[in-house]
Amino acid sequence: MKPNCLALSALGRRTAAPPISWLMKAALARPQLISLAAGFTDPATLPVSETRLLARQILKSAAPGRAALQYGTTAGEERLRRLTAERVRRLDGAPPAGAYSPERVVITHGSQQLLYMATEALCDPGDVVLVEDPTYFVYLGILQSHGVRGCGVRLEGDGLDLGHLEAVLNRLKRQGELPRLKLLYLVTYHQNPTGTTTSLEKKRGALRLLRQFESAAGHPIYLLEDAAYRELGFRGQAPPSALASRGAASRVLYAGTYSKPFATGVRVGFGLLPEPVRTAVLRIKGNHDFGTSNLPQHLLAAALESGIYDRHLDVLHRRYARKAQIMQHALAQEFPPQAEWRPPAGGLYFWVRLPGRIGTGVASRLFKAAVAHDVLYVPGQLCYAPDPARRRPDHEMRLSFGAASEHEIREGITRLGSVLQQELDSRDSRAAKRA
Amino acid sequence: MKPNCLALSALGRRTAAPPISWLMKAALARPQLISLAAGFTDPATLPVSETRLLARQILKSAAPGRAALQYGTTAGEERLRRLTAERVRRLDGAPPAGAYSPERVVITHGSQQLLYMATEALCDPGDVVLVEDPTYFVYLGILQSHGVRGCGVRLEGDGLDLGHLEAVLNRLKRQGELPRLKLLYLVTYHQNPTGTTTSLEKKRGALRLLRQFESAAGHPIYLLEDAAYRELGFRGQAPPSALASRGAASRVLYAGTYSKPFATGVRVGFGLLPEPVRTAVLRIKGNHDFGTSNLPQHLLAAALESGIYDRHLDVLHRRYARKAQIMQHALAQEFPPQAEWRPPAGGLYFWVRLPGRIGTGVASRLFKAAVAHDVLYVPGQLCYAPDPARRRPDHEMRLSFGAASEHEIREGITRLGSVLQQELDSRDSRAAKRA
Repeated sequence: MKPNCLALSALGRRTAAPPISWLMKAALARPQLISLAAGFTDPATLPVSETRLLARQILKSAAPGRAALQYGTTAGEERLRRLTAERVRRLDGAPPAGAYSPERVVITHGSQQLLYMATEALCDPGDVVLVEDPTYFVYLGILQSHGVRGCGVRLEGDGLDLGHLEAVLNRLKRQGELPRLKLLYLVTYHQNPTGTTTSLEKKRGALRLLRQFESAAGHPIYLLEDAAYRELGFRGQAPPSALASRGAASRVLYAGTYSKPFATGVRVGFGLLPEPVRTAVLRIKGNHDFGTSNLPQHLLAAALESGIYDRHLDVLHRRYARKAQIMQHALAQEFPPQAEWRPPAGGLYFWVRLPGRIGTGVASRLFKAAVAHDVLYVPGQLCYAPDPARRRPDHEMRLSFGAASEHEIREGITRLGSVLQQELDSRDSRAAKRA
Repeated sequence: MKPNCLALSALGRRTAAPPISWLMKAALARPQLISLAAGFTDPATLPVSETRLLARQILKSAAPGRAALQYGTTAGEERLRRLTAERVRRLDGAPPAGAYSPERVVITHGSQQLLYMATEALCDPGDVVLVEDPTYFVYLGILQSHGVRGCGVRLEGDGLDLGHLEAVLNRLKRQGELPRLKLLYLVTYHQNPTGTTTSLEKKRGALRLLRQFESAAGHPIYLLEDAAYRELGFRGQAPPSALASRGAASRVLYAGTYSKPFATGVRVGFGLLPEPVRTAVLRIKGNHDFGTSNLPQHLLAAALESGIYDRHLDVLHRRYARKAQIMQHALAQEFPPQAEWRPPAGGLYFWVRLPGRIGTGVASRLFKAAVAHDVLYVPGQLCYAPDPARRRPDHEMRLSFGAASEHEIREGITRLGSVLQQELDSRDSRAAKRA
């Protein structure tokens, strides 16, 4: 450690550079590079004229303009909290209103800030959080920063493998670690990175299991439901959130966002939280920033109320559905037939499993060859918690069709396919030489 | 502790409700109440038409509009970082550029977020931070939340009492506590709550003292210079920041903001940071929100570049100078002659010391009488760190002329003055009865 680093806190020393920042730097250094790595939204879909209209409306006269330009409250703008609570309830099929009280809503700087504060409110260093295997890698960064151990639970086509969840809970119980378990973190819609959507049955099953182990834990074990991609579904019907399960609201922290569905430059996310987490998060938020920027909140409230938000979603869905289809066709044409993936029904990502022992990690031959050919992906390994209980798989990649143009998607997949084929060929020829 | 609270982290349990939230609730519950407590800015000064113009400019065509509505980088928008570095350097009288490199700038959700992240990056539970006596009470909340001990250093008319700072440092050294000392936190311009501006000599003296004790500490001891009110000076010339002291940049964390000078609903603050703090803060910011909302950053950059920001500052200065004068006249007329205050040269606050043993705390007769007469102030006690080394003074009050109208200032001070006189009278009559 450099002598100056001795002043840093344990958190300051633990917090690692997010892997994505390295990838983004690599992209900036090679402007000709096609990034299928970044989770950016499609620039062409960004609602420029819509936002101009909304801003003009809000700022056209003194009273609403001043309200938007003054401090708000720590919990967030009242109208936006009400609209948010109503919207989530409607998405859930209008179950009883209790879990959807505007009082339970906290507006945040993106759902990311909610994930951060919920973890701060609940987790001490050495605590355990269960995560999907694989999961959203920035959340793994939050856990590492706080000295919290992520513990992977297998993911199936419709969500967690509940048998594995039970086995992990039993293992923690045997090891006397249950009192350290605070959260199960699930990205429940069009998951980042795999595109998986968790069925309501799986959410209910997970909640039941968590409840069973609470007495051994000595405290509530919460489900942190990250619904960041919920509104980006372009095919099929998405199941209700865990809030819709009877009696679940006291154990569910629901994190949502308007950033990805509307504009990532207007960072507005939210949480629906049970006590005592809501109070703790509100107090923490008071220290972070005593409230989310007010003008973006007013913009979003106006977008929701005017219908602009929903009309924009339609545009987004058509566009992403088309880009996903283009990526799917390109993958079918350009990738070796042994590669596996499932076409996503929403979100921004394909998750591709490569044949056999082809590594995709940052140090792998494949990754270096891809960068040399000016195409970037997220190595699958980054999405697995460093859990000593299992080896991190390293033969997967996350491919995003969010920010890349249609041409870039085709071209990027073509380049990746040829790099992949070369890697397979050179492996064959090495094997032939050894034989 | 309620059973559910057992799941909360140590931080989650420690984090207290900010006293200001209680005051704000009290204000909301009594709409007729005149709040001289809140540090809100003057609603009438909020730049509604200016912001409408800037938003229209940014959003009038696709390319700049999309840039403002897409994710930015974690450190912040490049142009805004450059403008910020240049501006702080210019305010400092254009010393050598090294300390003002745009690379050192991190854009945050208000300067509050910078204070939070700097504390996260440097302080572990049990660490010590030196603060002014009195200081910004929300920063005391951050310290409490992180289990960090605030330790008060006396404040004089031109900044810290350096003799007292040296005595406190020596005491910490004797007690073997220096290795726990990470920061000296100063609000250097028109301080919240006292209005004090720290002279450059005092900043230099403080930096020299911190350096002297570094070898005994075993690590750098940083000066966190909170310059939140720097641009709100309406009289006289403000001294340069600590960054302008030769060789100081490696020990100074400078926190600034555009929120209070421009619009508090557009929360954009910033830090100028030395390594390794900059890297640690950037990584932490990646976990908080991977970057400040981009649209507000673009608005501020455009405001700065167009001159709108500086023209707005002129308006603000005239207005606050006038309101400060109104409050001063009202205090001179309505408060008992034994009350002491100094007219501020900027910022939003008067700090009034009451005669003798008149308590101002939340539980005091005076505070209750004030609320009963529909006028609110911030009890001075809240601004003192709970430092076992000295008793918290409780006969001061912070009075803000920020949000209140001219009429409300006059009326609020009149009500407070009469409540105060009643309290003095009833005290005299009690004393007479006892005699």
